Amino acid sequence: MRPVDTLISARWVVPIVPRATVLPDHSVAIDGGRIAAVLPTALARSQFQPAHHVQLAQHALAPGLVNAHAHAAMNLLRGTGDDLPLARWLAERIWPLERALVNERFVYDGTRHAAAEMLRAGITCCNDMYFYPEEAARAFIDLGMRCVVGIIALEFPSSYATDADDYLRKGLRTRDALREEPLVSFTLAPHAPYTVADATLSRIAMLAEELDLPVHTHLHETDAEIAQSVQQHGTRPLARLDRLGLVTERLLAVHAVHLQPDEIALLARRGASVAHCPASNLKLASGVAPVAALLRQGVGVAFGTDGAASNNRLDLFEEMRLAALLAKGASLDASALPAWQALECATIASAGALGLQDRIGSIEVGKEADLIAIDLSELETQPCFDVVSQLVYCAGREHVCSVWVAGSRVVADRRLVRGAHEIDVGSIAAAGASWQARIQKQLSVRPD
Amino acid sequence: MRPVDTLISARWVVPIVPRATVLPDHSVAIDGGRIAAVLPTALARSQFQPAHHVQLAQHALAPGLVNAHAHAAMNLLRGTGDDLPLARWLAERIWPLERALVNERFVYDGTRHAAAEMLRAGITCCNDMYFYPEEAARAFIDLGMRCVVGIIALEFPSSYATDADDYLRKGLRTRDALREEPLVSFTLAPHAPYTVADATLSRIAMLAEELDLPVHTHLHETDAEIAQSVQQHGTRPLARLDRLGLVTERLLAVHAVHLQPDEIALLARRGASVAHCPASNLKLASGVAPVAALLRQGVGVAFGTDGAASNNRLDLFEEMRLAALLAKGASLDASALPAWQALECATIASAGALGLQDRIGSIEVGKEADLIAIDLSELETQPCFDVVSQLVYCAGREHVCSVWVAGSRVVADRRLVRGAHEIDVGSIAAAGASWQARIQKQLSVRPD
Repeated sequence: MRPVDTLISARWVVPIVPRATVLPDHSVAIDGGRIAAVLPTALARSQFQPAHHVQLAQHALAPGLVNAHAHAAMNLLRGTGDDLPLARWLAERIWPLERALVNERFVYDGTRHAAAEMLRAGITCCNDMYFYPEEAARAFIDLGMRCVVGIIALEFPSSYATDADDYLRKGLRTRDALREEPLVSFTLAPHAPYTVADATLSRIAMLAEELDLPVHTHLHETDAEIAQSVQQHGTRPLARLDRLGLVTERLLAVHAVHLQPDEIALLARRGASVAHCPASNLKLASGVAPVAALLRQGVGVAFGTDGAASNNRLDLFEEMRLAALLAKGASLDASALPAWQALECATIASAGALGLQDRIGSIEVGKEADLIAIDLSELETQPCFDVVSQLVYCAGREHVCSVWVAGSRVVADRRLVRGAHEIDVGSIAAAGASWQARIQKQLSVRPD
Repeated sequence: MRPVDTLISARWVVPIVPRATVLPDHSVAIDGGRIAAVLPTALARSQFQPAHHVQLAQHALAPGLVNAHAHAAMNLLRGTGDDLPLARWLAERIWPLERALVNERFVYDGTRHAAAEMLRAGITCCNDMYFYPEEAARAFIDLGMRCVVGIIALEFPSSYATDADDYLRKGLRTRDALREEPLVSFTLAPHAPYTVADATLSRIAMLAEELDLPVHTHLHETDAEIAQSVQQHGTRPLARLDRLGLVTERLLAVHAVHLQPDEIALLARRGASVAHCPASNLKLASGVAPVAALLRQGVGVAFGTDGAASNNRLDLFEEMRLAALLAKGASLDASALPAWQALECATIASAGALGLQDRIGSIEVGKEADLIAIDLSELETQPCFDVVSQLVYCAGREHVCSVWVAGSRVVADRRLVRGAHEIDVGSIAAAGASWQARIQKQLSVRPD
């Protein structure tokens, strides 16, 4: 009998790798934060002596979901810019609010709020882009959540940094400060081609090689930004990034709503990934990304929630379902993006887009144990003919009852926990609510 | 002090009429199943002496949601036909399963399962179309839910009826049998123009006038059905219905995905309504209904879930959010279908489409008290700048904690109740699950 830290025995294990597989009555053994074995429960009982044995008689056990694009701190601005197009949403609501309010505390409180929401929704890793990334990382760390922190770069000053060099300098300093944190990794995160100059983008291309980091940027979200680029740079944004050496397997192009066939082919050829954020793209009336075509050509499609100001929920169950439905409706092909593939996008493909495919995104021996348990016994998820269909088309984040990150339980019965202690969700919500009056005041003085 | 049955005091009351209104710290007084008053809570305390006083300190109180299109009994078939287009979904999965399995018990068990799911999701009234409508009605009645039962008509035989006359005869007999049921009303429900002949449609047009009933039918769901109609009848289905006298203010056209501008104008001119089922339309790759254009021209747009075999959840919170997002994405106008209008579609517009606008769909004095309480205090719905935005873009059915139908509480803390008794949700789910083996067996013998 081999001693292990934890044995989780579930009605079904959905390992993601191998593809479209459901393992009934299987167990996952965890030791030292990693997956030590995946095997039938009957066998597991005779082979392992776990310190903790968790029994999930009515649950599916799946890899934690990976949110490939978020601005977590914007949880504080949830619902402040509804029913507006991207340009007005940014210029009239988000940027003025951010100029007036964003500081270290805003980022910490907002990110912690978002991390709590994400963990309770089965998201174990978030790829974040925002000001004060060190504060964001601290918030994720405090809740035991894995994060990928963007070394953000913009040409425009903010309370956080004065110019592109200053952004990069501060971001790289954050990377040094957090080098020993096991749950934190980094991207270079130029905000978008329309907010970052050629010189900065070139420098980022070099840094990405030098430091072995993914590049996380908004791209081709709206027609307007493409037209503006053609006017200012004589080329579409993707071609401009390519000219500057950024279209590689390191690139995570967020949104990618407006793509021509040759652009899809370029992304495929270079091994770049796309972060598909269907709720945000619809809500801001940006359009619908050509997901069926991207997948057909072999582009890695990850799923992101975007920030709460344009979504308004950080919920990858919602994005999986919406992406699967929308791909069918947009391509007029009911077999487009079937349930198992939507689940792949939100797990292994999102991990891959962040350079984490060897560490997370599937339930395989040797990977870190980022796991979620979804209760499928409720009336709303019955009858259950196909576990993966049920997870994508039927279940909601409210059915996630337990979550582990690197083998540590962080959600138990929908409560946040660290070790034996419960984290008070009410106090996290209250810290967020304390910002509401200030934001409300700021909204009331806005000119429109 | 006026004695009343119940006083509900809520942090916010969202009455729907007047439009886009939120009443903070208001109360709703209920007497004899009807709304007796809507007034500030401070005033209500001094005017009413309620037998029961319900305090909802962190909740929005809204009218019950009205599901304008469902096949409730199909809950038993949830997830049996994923990732297939409508024609194959019907021919290869649904019709064979129905031929083999549907009987009185199937309809009662399936409808009770669906009614439980809907009530827990804040749906207080369902417009249903299925075989054995009397069994469906009994299931709704048993859970205290309001229903609109379709007097279904098809030319094709089933275990329920032999031909169109037999369907109508049995449906009308059901109407007679349930005449005294206060929560039951009826529609004439010719399944679709492609399954019902001219003679039957003409007879239904006459019956609708004679009996003062709405007409509930699938219409223009797919391009293929329109092409087929042009070939067989020399005309598009809507024009054919119009020729047969069915395009009136009584018509509830379900789906209406494919509409030409003159067809939208015709629906508007006649005062007909559309039941928009966005999840089902996307999932079956039927397309996207032109909701922004319909609303702009004044057509009443109701929301429906469709059946669980094509959705796979009976959840109008999901449909509201999806419809609001999709209308923006499809029209490339971020101001299309704002949150308050999505909430109107799922309440007063759906009630209107069923001829129930004087009885339900808003919180107004004299209307029957179909009410739902949504808890907005959770982290996921914080901060809350705009209650209506929060309900549509952010909250989920899991935040519905209490539901009343005609003044009787049917959901308390997410448990189903009738008077002082709790209804065992587990036994409802189990009755559904008992069908699973039979359905599974049937699926395993299907030819594909």
